[in-house]
Amino acid sequence: MSSNHVTTGPIAGSTKHYEQVDADGTALRIPVRRINLTNGEHFDVYDTSGPYTDDAATIDLDAGLPKLRDEWSKPDIEGPRTQLAWARAGLITAEMRYIAAREDVSAELVRDEVAAGRAVIPANHNHPESEPMIIGKKFAVKINANIGNSAVTSSIAEEVEKMVWATRWGADTIMDLSTGKNIHETREWILRNSPVPVGTVPIYQALEKVNGDPTALTWELYRDTIIEQAEQGVDYMTVHAGVLLRYVPLTAKRVTGIVSRGGSIMAAWCLAHHRESFLYTNFAELCDILARYDITFSLGDGLRPGSIADANDEAQLAELRTLGELTKIAKARGVQVMIEGPGHVPMHKIVENVRLEEEWCEEAPFYTLGPLATDIAPAYDHITSAIGAAIIAQAGTAMLCYVTPKEHLGLPNRDDVKTGVITYKIAAHSADLAKGHPRAQERDDALSKARFEFRWHDQFALSLDPDTAREYHDETLPAEPAKTAHFCSMCGPKFCSMRISADVREYAEKHGFTDVDAIEAGMAEKSAEFAEAGNQVYLPVVS
Amino acid sequence: MSSNHVTTGPIAGSTKHYEQVDADGTALRIPVRRINLTNGEHFDVYDTSGPYTDDAATIDLDAGLPKLRDEWSKPDIEGPRTQLAWARAGLITAEMRYIAAREDVSAELVRDEVAAGRAVIPANHNHPESEPMIIGKKFAVKINANIGNSAVTSSIAEEVEKMVWATRWGADTIMDLSTGKNIHETREWILRNSPVPVGTVPIYQALEKVNGDPTALTWELYRDTIIEQAEQGVDYMTVHAGVLLRYVPLTAKRVTGIVSRGGSIMAAWCLAHHRESFLYTNFAELCDILARYDITFSLGDGLRPGSIADANDEAQLAELRTLGELTKIAKARGVQVMIEGPGHVPMHKIVENVRLEEEWCEEAPFYTLGPLATDIAPAYDHITSAIGAAIIAQAGTAMLCYVTPKEHLGLPNRDDVKTGVITYKIAAHSADLAKGHPRAQERDDALSKARFEFRWHDQFALSLDPDTAREYHDETLPAEPAKTAHFCSMCGPKFCSMRISADVREYAEKHGFTDVDAIEAGMAEKSAEFAEAGNQVYLPVVS
Repeated sequence: MSSNHVTTGPIAGSTKHYEQVDADGTALRIPVRRINLTNGEHFDVYDTSGPYTDDAATIDLDAGLPKLRDEWSKPDIEGPRTQLAWARAGLITAEMRYIAAREDVSAELVRDEVAAGRAVIPANHNHPESEPMIIGKKFAVKINANIGNSAVTSSIAEEVEKMVWATRWGADTIMDLSTGKNIHETREWILRNSPVPVGTVPIYQALEKVNGDPTALTWELYRDTIIEQAEQGVDYMTVHAGVLLRYVPLTAKRVTGIVSRGGSIMAAWCLAHHRESFLYTNFAELCDILARYDITFSLGDGLRPGSIADANDEAQLAELRTLGELTKIAKARGVQVMIEGPGHVPMHKIVENVRLEEEWCEEAPFYTLGPLATDIAPAYDHITSAIGAAIIAQAGTAMLCYVTPKEHLGLPNRDDVKTGVITYKIAAHSADLAKGHPRAQERDDALSKARFEFRWHDQFALSLDPDTAREYHDETLPAEPAKTAHFCSMCGPKFCSMRISADVREYAEKHGFTDVDAIEAGMAEKSAEFAEAGNQVYLPVVS
Repeated sequence: MSSNHVTTGPIAGSTKHYEQVDADGTALRIPVRRINLTNGEHFDVYDTSGPYTDDAATIDLDAGLPKLRDEWSKPDIEGPRTQLAWARAGLITAEMRYIAAREDVSAELVRDEVAAGRAVIPANHNHPESEPMIIGKKFAVKINANIGNSAVTSSIAEEVEKMVWATRWGADTIMDLSTGKNIHETREWILRNSPVPVGTVPIYQALEKVNGDPTALTWELYRDTIIEQAEQGVDYMTVHAGVLLRYVPLTAKRVTGIVSRGGSIMAAWCLAHHRESFLYTNFAELCDILARYDITFSLGDGLRPGSIADANDEAQLAELRTLGELTKIAKARGVQVMIEGPGHVPMHKIVENVRLEEEWCEEAPFYTLGPLATDIAPAYDHITSAIGAAIIAQAGTAMLCYVTPKEHLGLPNRDDVKTGVITYKIAAHSADLAKGHPRAQERDDALSKARFEFRWHDQFALSLDPDTAREYHDETLPAEPAKTAHFCSMCGPKFCSMRISADVREYAEKHGFTDVDAIEAGMAEKSAEFAEAGNQVYLPVVS
């Protein structure tokens, strides 16, 4: 595999920039995407893309990314060396300082939220290539992109490029959900080259080892798989330890039964053996393994609803209560925890999910798949789920797992991955705005100001997808002069509301019309001046 | 222009079907789209597409659609002959019966909501080709698609096809926003061939008549334009009569000023003449003209926010109060009214818009453009706005004006129109589900049941866009056997959670495992049977 498989170079209109931060003598380089505006200003945004968008970086997939975290100190303390344990001990790690700079918050806030279990920093000691990030409701809402080959299609090279491509557009973490051949090798390539935390669902690989027969799974085989993946550097692992034997029948009358792969594997195992899930009965040992690497639990919702009809039902909520129990056990052993959530949920039942999760799981970060607000739009489930995702994130969900247009229908290709990521950036950012997250609105204001001032290039550069924005503008008005034209392609040069509006503003400001009283008092005289000035409310700039 | 310009024939998997309803001796034929399922059942859905999807219909654009409403009685009463006046007189019109059958509600509910002004039936006497529909919060949420040529691009034939295309995919009304040449002729073609109500913004054509100079507009010229369009059959008209002189300066300090074309035209006129808007001062006469034809007012929000920064500001809310005043005047004169709403609004400020509109405008149907929940995603504003649209519709908005991917960038083409319509069907249906609208969830359940039973063809047919759903499935698994395969393209044949889940269900049902107690009591014994049966939790159906 060579570097010509992956996309490199900055996003249009941007350059890579680094801020220097000192962490107890270690110099941290915090990456930002610097958007360079045509008016000489610049606007910096959070950057998930790693060295791939840095023109000065040399990309060599065989060598992997620089192991930047290897040089950072890992303080020795009593018990496990995890971000949770360090935070509880009052220590601020280099990872926490890095994150504080990225999020533009204090390092103390980062530490305190991690210590409380309200935020996690997925950062396996064996994945030193990753740029630290945080998942918690007091921080910017994050998004995850699933990649991974299946038995049916795709190759390792494609999956590595999907990872690079997804982080280019803003994926904060990646989950490798490979189910086919070469699971270990695919994951190795992804980990060594991923600038973001990587999550997995280890039961998928365990199942491959028993030729796809879930009833042949054993705790020992699963444990060995966990250790194999831990050694490679997986940062967080989905574990469906809440699918208990007695919950399985609760799904029997559902419209769509069990739709989680992990959930159905464990349900089949429990039924076949009539024993409690080995993930549940061995959970304490599992915690101790994860603690050694500082792997974060993502406690999976194996019984999540797969349809509107099944939302918030007994099966789903019974499992969630059990995840709450497991959260306490994991945290007691120093392991960071987040909780996975649905799925398919109608809008009026979404907020209840966050409320119960926070109540039962001690406000551990919630990590939801959408949810899809309706079942009736396969091929558009990035949109059905963006509606649910924005609402659930506004209510407190810390990370959103993206859904692509291919959901329910097929495996996402490169375009689908990008569409899914951009769609979820929209949901996450909409929630940041609604939550009043510091600085979120600055980008909206910068873009809208550019729009109002007809700085087309800046409008494109400030958008989530400059390439597509420009392409759409080109379709109607391809010529370069149109990129500085004082009218939009919608109305044409003869009439433009933005232009009229700008003239109104200029006029009003010139004459001090800033409130209703002012205009009531002095408008008559001033309107005469406006008329004398020739009523220049629009000016065709190009013919 | 000939019929080969427009798309005809049923949507894949469906056929046109009519239900017969008697309206005081007149036989009404209520169209439904009948989705024919592979299990021998069928599922009927609301159908906006008119005769174009009826294989038995002959389409002749030159002749126009049959004038079906010409044969229906228009009861003589004191005062204007409008649906509002008839409803207040306690009469149930043929239009109301038609709507009751379409919505599956009682005709009395339709009449009562119209009488109260909480719903409107946009149906100009001169547009007899239209199939009656209702806009009101107690009915299914409706969507509007904007079409219309501009000075820059597009032709009449393209616009007629856009109308046919938009209604094919579910647009409940169409707005013709043409601003370029041939406005009258374009509109005539659209009206004579449109099965759905057609709305316009008459000030656009008035502006063309004065060569684009807003200060040259007069009441007389505007009135003549209204009458010209009324005679043609326009069903509802956007009138920006709430843009008052004293509100204009309130926009001066906005990030994006005035973004409504109609709003900026009226603002420019008011400033130039230092007089109150001629739409406001002549509003009573305007009402009397609209009453003669039973045209519905869509009171425009000329001062709607064009950016997150400007949402819910003084200018926007001042205008909304004035629209409330005008609503009372119009209703007193027998004219139906709906109120237009924003625009760009962050999620936490959306519901307030509905609350104030209902309080100030006597619960007149709210008709909103999105709103967009963030400004930062040009090229994806169908999605940014679908988030806002779903939320505002859940809160009570009765009709959603679609936004296409080209919003802010260019004019929508055929694909953009379809994407906009489907996206807004998603938002509207999600809101119907959240509001508990009768029968809304039946479609979700039917599709999810098909999905769970691996009836791929039925899943496609029941979806909002069968063509694209099938196309995406084909990309991963093109072969026909895959359309009946008992696995999804995501996981492949070796492992499938849906298949496992179906087996769990079959097993549980067979053994009466319907609640936690049952399994606790008798599971041990029964699990042995499951093991004996060979743990057949999945079966590869194709290799």
